[in-house]
Amino acid sequence: MKKFINETDTLLDESLHGFSKAHAEIIDYNPSPRYVTRIMSNTNNKVALISGGGAGHEPLHAGFVGLGMLDAACPGQIFTSPTPDQMLAAAEAVNNDSGVLFIVKNYAGDVMNFEIAAEMLECPSETVLVSDDVALPKDHPTGRRGVAGTLIVEKIIGAAAEQGMDLIACKALGDRVSQATASMGVALTSCTVPALGKPTFELAENQIELGVGIHGEQGRETASLSSAREIVEQIAQTIDAELQPQNNQPVLLHVNGFGATPLIELYLVYDLAYRFWDRRGINICRSLVGNYTTSLDMAGCSITLTLLDEEMIGLWDAPVHTAALRWGC
Amino acid sequence: MKKFINETDTLLDESLHGFSKAHAEIIDYNPSPRYVTRIMSNTNNKVALISGGGAGHEPLHAGFVGLGMLDAACPGQIFTSPTPDQMLAAAEAVNNDSGVLFIVKNYAGDVMNFEIAAEMLECPSETVLVSDDVALPKDHPTGRRGVAGTLIVEKIIGAAAEQGMDLIACKALGDRVSQATASMGVALTSCTVPALGKPTFELAENQIELGVGIHGEQGRETASLSSAREIVEQIAQTIDAELQPQNNQPVLLHVNGFGATPLIELYLVYDLAYRFWDRRGINICRSLVGNYTTSLDMAGCSITLTLLDEEMIGLWDAPVHTAALRWGC
Repeated sequence: MKKFINETDTLLDESLHGFSKAHAEIIDYNPSPRYVTRIMSNTNNKVALISGGGAGHEPLHAGFVGLGMLDAACPGQIFTSPTPDQMLAAAEAVNNDSGVLFIVKNYAGDVMNFEIAAEMLECPSETVLVSDDVALPKDHPTGRRGVAGTLIVEKIIGAAAEQGMDLIACKALGDRVSQATASMGVALTSCTVPALGKPTFELAENQIELGVGIHGEQGRETASLSSAREIVEQIAQTIDAELQPQNNQPVLLHVNGFGATPLIELYLVYDLAYRFWDRRGINICRSLVGNYTTSLDMAGCSITLTLLDEEMIGLWDAPVHTAALRWGC
Repeated sequence: MKKFINETDTLLDESLHGFSKAHAEIIDYNPSPRYVTRIMSNTNNKVALISGGGAGHEPLHAGFVGLGMLDAACPGQIFTSPTPDQMLAAAEAVNNDSGVLFIVKNYAGDVMNFEIAAEMLECPSETVLVSDDVALPKDHPTGRRGVAGTLIVEKIIGAAAEQGMDLIACKALGDRVSQATASMGVALTSCTVPALGKPTFELAENQIELGVGIHGEQGRETASLSSAREIVEQIAQTIDAELQPQNNQPVLLHVNGFGATPLIELYLVYDLAYRFWDRRGINICRSLVGNYTTSLDMAGCSITLTLLDEEMIGLWDAPVHTAALRWGC
């Protein structure tokens, strides 16, 4: 295992200390229990937005804490849910008398721990569950996984909360964005979890994993390596069949790298996905390309499409100042 | 070779088409000869800033075209210098009667082709040569390579040009920033150039390449894999010996990923580098962590330090709106 690491046990804390120093103007890091909070002044009594999940997906979620997005994020150990005490402490730190909204990716551990935290919390709270991974069928026993669409939900509700939207309306908006969002990924290689020290799964030199999860979960199919055009076509068709965008529908197209795929390839994937929906008369009016919801050192990417309306476009464009997304300020 | 690719020959163009569509509000792509220009209005008659170099280092340089940074970038084929006709066409497209400043990484092909373009250009021009890689000795026959410090030069002169600084002063400022900047990299793995189809160099499972260049050039030493602490210590000591920052010296600390190293590791490297200079009483007042000057799918990173003065700090903080760096607007 070749990584920049001192000891497996200290990797996360050392990294978060680095993160907090590199972005000291945006966030504060509380090491025990572990959470990151926004330090920018919160002048209005806004709804507090909190997300979290296993580490290894950086910049998700700590990289999205700041003005116009999250108020706090709780990182668990790598690919491991954070604990309820982290979530509770984070919620108490950022609650501003307007209630707390948890944004949770649909994984059993995350869901359970956020539920426990919500029960223990002595203020109103709501939860938006993100399950945008259409590689799995809708009726999958544990539901669909939450993947790269999560940041789109976080950005749009983040802007709404910043503008003073109340808890119930934020929850409804979050559900609406979540339902309008579909993602699917593909791995060219496995990632290597430091504590394990070897690849999570095996892929031959001519194989890819279509529909892979962001922890290296098995996808739809282990397929033969084909051209980028064929790979993108299969993913885009699956997403398109799910969302069924109509002619002229405004959409956000997000191509997300899993960590080890260079930008030159991600923009090529974007070009192919753009052409796919452009041919169908879809209005690709917003875009995001880069490594945002990663899987450590996995080579691969995912494509996410969100059907937008005027309100969502305005909220997507609203100012954001976080470590990983920044515009308008 | 596992990559998202259709054909080796079309990769760069397809990727640049994707790039231009994803960032249509910032840049325009001219496919023949190949260059990217800024489309934002240039209200004052500012000096035109142009950079370029082989592709495979994305987001460098096209990702730095836009308000407050470059006016144009000329991408060559992967790891191959762009040609003088690209540079000349780009210069003619963005020249605004205040002269053209070329920012060139010190590689023989780039230097020669930018020189030819400057000679052919019928307007005043100057060149800032960046050679920040201190892995090589100062008296190396071809000089030191230009690496991740280049974007710092581009950002600072970019802001100065935006504020109306003239050509001669921009050139002098660029030289000053360049001389105040030192970088050194380390590779954990080789990259794979698509046209070659196999790794550029070999490293055993327990080996790293200290002082590697951004095209996989041999560094100072093929060393044994050690802890991140030891690796960072060696790099930081080399940079420190070169720049010899004094107590309380304000600096910009940039940790740059080569493309396949996850952010969780880059922030750990940042933490270690921060501690190194903090212990020496250096004032780390600006930071940048992420994949900015990449080497395709190489795992590894570089550390860059720039000694700042008040003027440089102001220019670093000035608004920038490019695909890869954005703040203040």
